[in-house]
Amino acid sequence: MKTSIATVSISGSFREKLEAIARVGFQGIEIFEQDFIAEEGSPREIGRMIRDHGLEIALFQPFRDFEGLTGELRRRAFDRARAKFDTMAELGASRILVCSSVHPEALGGIDRAAEDFRELGEIAREYGITVGYEALAWGRHVNDHRDAWEIVRRADHPNVGLILDSFHTLARRIDPDTIRRIPADRIVFVQLADAPLIEMDLLYWSRHFRCMPGEGDLPVTDFMRAVAATGYDDWVSLEIFNDQFRGGRPEGLARDGLRSIVALLDDVRRAEPDIRARLPEIPPRVPVRGVEFVEFTTRGAEAEALSAMLASMGFRHVADHVSKRVELWQQGAVRIVLNAEETGFAASAWAMHGSSVCDIGLRVDSAADTVARATALKAEPFHQPVGPGELEIPAVRGVGGSVLHFLDEASGLARVWEVEFRPREGAAPEAPGGAGLTRIDHIAETMSYDEMLSWALFYTSIFEMTKTPMVDVIDPDGLVRSQAVASRDGAVRITLNGAETHRTLAGSFLAESFGGAVQHLAFATDDIFATAGALEAAGFEALPMTENYYRDLKARFGLTAEEVERLARHHILYDEDEKGAYFQLYSRPFDNGFFFEIVERRGAYSGYGAPNAPFRIAAQKRLMRPKGMPRR
Amino acid sequence: MKTSIATVSISGSFREKLEAIARVGFQGIEIFEQDFIAEEGSPREIGRMIRDHGLEIALFQPFRDFEGLTGELRRRAFDRARAKFDTMAELGASRILVCSSVHPEALGGIDRAAEDFRELGEIAREYGITVGYEALAWGRHVNDHRDAWEIVRRADHPNVGLILDSFHTLARRIDPDTIRRIPADRIVFVQLADAPLIEMDLLYWSRHFRCMPGEGDLPVTDFMRAVAATGYDDWVSLEIFNDQFRGGRPEGLARDGLRSIVALLDDVRRAEPDIRARLPEIPPRVPVRGVEFVEFTTRGAEAEALSAMLASMGFRHVADHVSKRVELWQQGAVRIVLNAEETGFAASAWAMHGSSVCDIGLRVDSAADTVARATALKAEPFHQPVGPGELEIPAVRGVGGSVLHFLDEASGLARVWEVEFRPREGAAPEAPGGAGLTRIDHIAETMSYDEMLSWALFYTSIFEMTKTPMVDVIDPDGLVRSQAVASRDGAVRITLNGAETHRTLAGSFLAESFGGAVQHLAFATDDIFATAGALEAAGFEALPMTENYYRDLKARFGLTAEEVERLARHHILYDEDEKGAYFQLYSRPFDNGFFFEIVERRGAYSGYGAPNAPFRIAAQKRLMRPKGMPRR
Repeated sequence: MKTSIATVSISGSFREKLEAIARVGFQGIEIFEQDFIAEEGSPREIGRMIRDHGLEIALFQPFRDFEGLTGELRRRAFDRARAKFDTMAELGASRILVCSSVHPEALGGIDRAAEDFRELGEIAREYGITVGYEALAWGRHVNDHRDAWEIVRRADHPNVGLILDSFHTLARRIDPDTIRRIPADRIVFVQLADAPLIEMDLLYWSRHFRCMPGEGDLPVTDFMRAVAATGYDDWVSLEIFNDQFRGGRPEGLARDGLRSIVALLDDVRRAEPDIRARLPEIPPRVPVRGVEFVEFTTRGAEAEALSAMLASMGFRHVADHVSKRVELWQQGAVRIVLNAEETGFAASAWAMHGSSVCDIGLRVDSAADTVARATALKAEPFHQPVGPGELEIPAVRGVGGSVLHFLDEASGLARVWEVEFRPREGAAPEAPGGAGLTRIDHIAETMSYDEMLSWALFYTSIFEMTKTPMVDVIDPDGLVRSQAVASRDGAVRITLNGAETHRTLAGSFLAESFGGAVQHLAFATDDIFATAGALEAAGFEALPMTENYYRDLKARFGLTAEEVERLARHHILYDEDEKGAYFQLYSRPFDNGFFFEIVERRGAYSGYGAPNAPFRIAAQKRLMRPKGMPRR
Repeated sequence: MKTSIATVSISGSFREKLEAIARVGFQGIEIFEQDFIAEEGSPREIGRMIRDHGLEIALFQPFRDFEGLTGELRRRAFDRARAKFDTMAELGASRILVCSSVHPEALGGIDRAAEDFRELGEIAREYGITVGYEALAWGRHVNDHRDAWEIVRRADHPNVGLILDSFHTLARRIDPDTIRRIPADRIVFVQLADAPLIEMDLLYWSRHFRCMPGEGDLPVTDFMRAVAATGYDDWVSLEIFNDQFRGGRPEGLARDGLRSIVALLDDVRRAEPDIRARLPEIPPRVPVRGVEFVEFTTRGAEAEALSAMLASMGFRHVADHVSKRVELWQQGAVRIVLNAEETGFAASAWAMHGSSVCDIGLRVDSAADTVARATALKAEPFHQPVGPGELEIPAVRGVGGSVLHFLDEASGLARVWEVEFRPREGAAPEAPGGAGLTRIDHIAETMSYDEMLSWALFYTSIFEMTKTPMVDVIDPDGLVRSQAVASRDGAVRITLNGAETHRTLAGSFLAESFGGAVQHLAFATDDIFATAGALEAAGFEALPMTENYYRDLKARFGLTAEEVERLARHHILYDEDEKGAYFQLYSRPFDNGFFFEIVERRGAYSGYGAPNAPFRIAAQKRLMRPKGMPRR
């Protein structure tokens, strides 16, 4: 199949859009009339400019309110069609989208509409143009692709076919398998869009909430499987209207668009092995087995403070890099790398963001396949020169310019610790038990709200990870949205937190760290109380929670006075749901807003303590905001 | 009645909220449990802090999922109630909101619920607490205030009453007049919220889209009239959840809240003259008769450029201020004042925003009443020292720190031109005809999107102005929302344009002018073609529109080739609707993004040419963005 995107889906001037769309690798565009009207240059020149970018005009759109009119209105509709066909001829466009009428005076009647299209087909034939008819979900008489198909069938004209759009079909909960009975050669074009499942007016939903396939909740894969099952093997194109995208960067949006299509077609290929359509072959979604390491770039006083914090949490400095100023700290299965190099990637990350997480290592089955899939999905590969005796570990760029390294057993890359690191004298060869921290429970990444859909798509399209519903976290100074992506077994969990204003804790971290990504790391323990005791003995200062918090806990969950007293003594936060319980203990935040969390999960609790977030944030803000100082 | 606001309605830390709420003049608060849990200090201390701010705790909320449970769940619900009552006793709160249950195991049954409330009332009596029951619009069994009232009636307990909330009643389109049959002494508390009319899931709508009464589309006045008609004369309180508000400033939100309540109660007083409730008496909404002047602060080369532009549009410099460096330019009924003073308000506006509109004069019937209403509605009065022989003209602060002056015939203030200005030699005593501009058609103010609701409320609550539905203007680099407020006869029209990113034309104007307000002025003509001719003769350079624009116009409206050619020759934009036609002609933008527009309205066209906005913006951006220069 060939990939295309409607110019309306991305932001920027028309030229900026074309450049972004071409560079990322789309083969065609849907030209949206508004883009084109605003442009200087004749249609002929614009058509040439598009082709000069290596792009085909896959579709010209929209042509509205055509069918079902009578008398003078009908005559004018045909005049408008001819004017559009003239423009298309100059542009070099041979396919037009006619969407079902919303005209207040349009009459219904399948045969009347079929007759209109047969007549339009005759005119289109003169121009060598193909007309595609699409049922808008809010069309006045036609709002179901089955009805549109019946009109196309009865129009029975070689220049008139059907256009399918996943949003219009799925928004009305029409079974996409009804597409399987439509002949491929009568499908003129296929448009894709996803959307979050929020019950609302269809037109409003469509205009403001559409998103890339995989970014929303609609069964777009089922839709596309049905399309592919017909034998259709032509254009698939994104048509997205989204308020968040309007202010985005053209290249990021174009890249996300292609990523979503490639991942979707790959899913279709695996689910429908018998289809004949030409679909790209890429390695399957990557199962992630765990977090191998988290690397900080840090130096000077900040490095000392971070080391002291790690030590107070039971971590031990177990090894040093053979040739670099890089320390390995460890506890249980958690490896923290502190990089104080003054050249290379970590140094440039330090220059950009200050002390921060610059690198995350994920354990995978095949690092090579991971990078192959990631780059097929337009992730940016990362390389830096490797020193003597060092291993070349495959990597791509992640959130906020950080790096994701992939380590596998097969190629021995997980032995990097033996090869590149020298144990410190006196450090036990075994991983130290410390305060009972066993592994990384989750990594919390902060970004601007506008980037959340993009990074959720990144993780869920490259890896075998699924996303949770988005929740609102109420910061006293603004809303933060939070969504988690996780492997099914919970071996890797990442929370994405989208800030809308700089005044939220997440927003001020973004500002302080100039777009840095990881705002907190959560470690797992099997016994939160034992860990809390060990931490206190080691001088760890927990984030203090209010008495009111514990009073409310008691009422909320019916805990005993003793249980609540025990939680309060250690400043442990608590949540529970029908599946289990969750205990949380926070460090005090560093100056830039970074912090650590320690959690214990009981039963099958799979959340992140969202109900506690407002109280945790208020407590952190109390520590970070000097009392009595004007805030603005 | 007494005014209150839920702390959850505004942003900031709890203390910041209290300060803002108290300063603006509310008498009480609804304390939201989350605010309180996050606070340090015992409930007793928090209660004292609230009272120290001069505020009463009007309501404690929420208590959820109480009624309709059985067995252990029911026992725990009563335990939760006692815990809350304990907290309330310490806080000093005597009224609690119980919202109708959404618990999956809650059983229905009016009598069962009534029994639960009778029992709860007995416990509440021990504490001296009043329980208020509210029907959530999405309650599992009870989602209509009539059912909640029936439960309260059957509970038949002096400590149990009804809470009414305009959102929950109006969102379900329940006739608010059904409230008139409820006895006032059984209504415990009244909550107000408005919302824009968008069809969507009720809970989602409520959580994200609520707004201050008058900022949305619900008939909140009808609701409040019905409440007042019962004889209810106690608390009215705002409970607003809105994504836009989360990141706002506490004081602005508190002020808007009080403004909305005061305006609403004034409307109720006028509509229901027989009610006995104590309502504030303020002057009625102010009819605005026209724009008397628009004043720019400008100097140096910028003043020269502005003067040259005015001259090319047919304005003439007709008079000078008797003592200040202030020029009066005129054409038809349009007065433009150019202020180059180096001290005083205009000078500080210049220092802040550069050359910009700093002052707008509106003609009203009574300037004194206008200021009285505006200040009752918490507008900020504006004064500056008056020189010898100058008139003291009443004024308040408007958008972006600019000033709104009010001039009336009665007190002779409209004669300011004769008193303070000296005609220039050679200038005709009559208003010059120039290029045929007759009056100011509209003033376009740009602001951040977050401020739009606030300024629409400002205009519609102080003046007899109504708002149009909000429309999306697609800037290539982001979304701009636009809404107009206008007097019924169109004598004063103001468009409010909310920018979300700095990369839009509106957003870059905001950034360039450091929050400046008026981005363009539109003058009216009765003959756009004659005006265009006169302008060209005077050297005016119109904003050039593309050929593609005119090609599309022809197809869109079925215009003749001659009509389109005539429009194209003068770069005139065209729109029409069922009521009439609209012609627009734009100046080129100044460096900061300010520009002029000239319009002709035919028939009863009352819009602003929104369909043309994307093409106009693209044309302006082409002029403002140097070709080939990287934009980011």
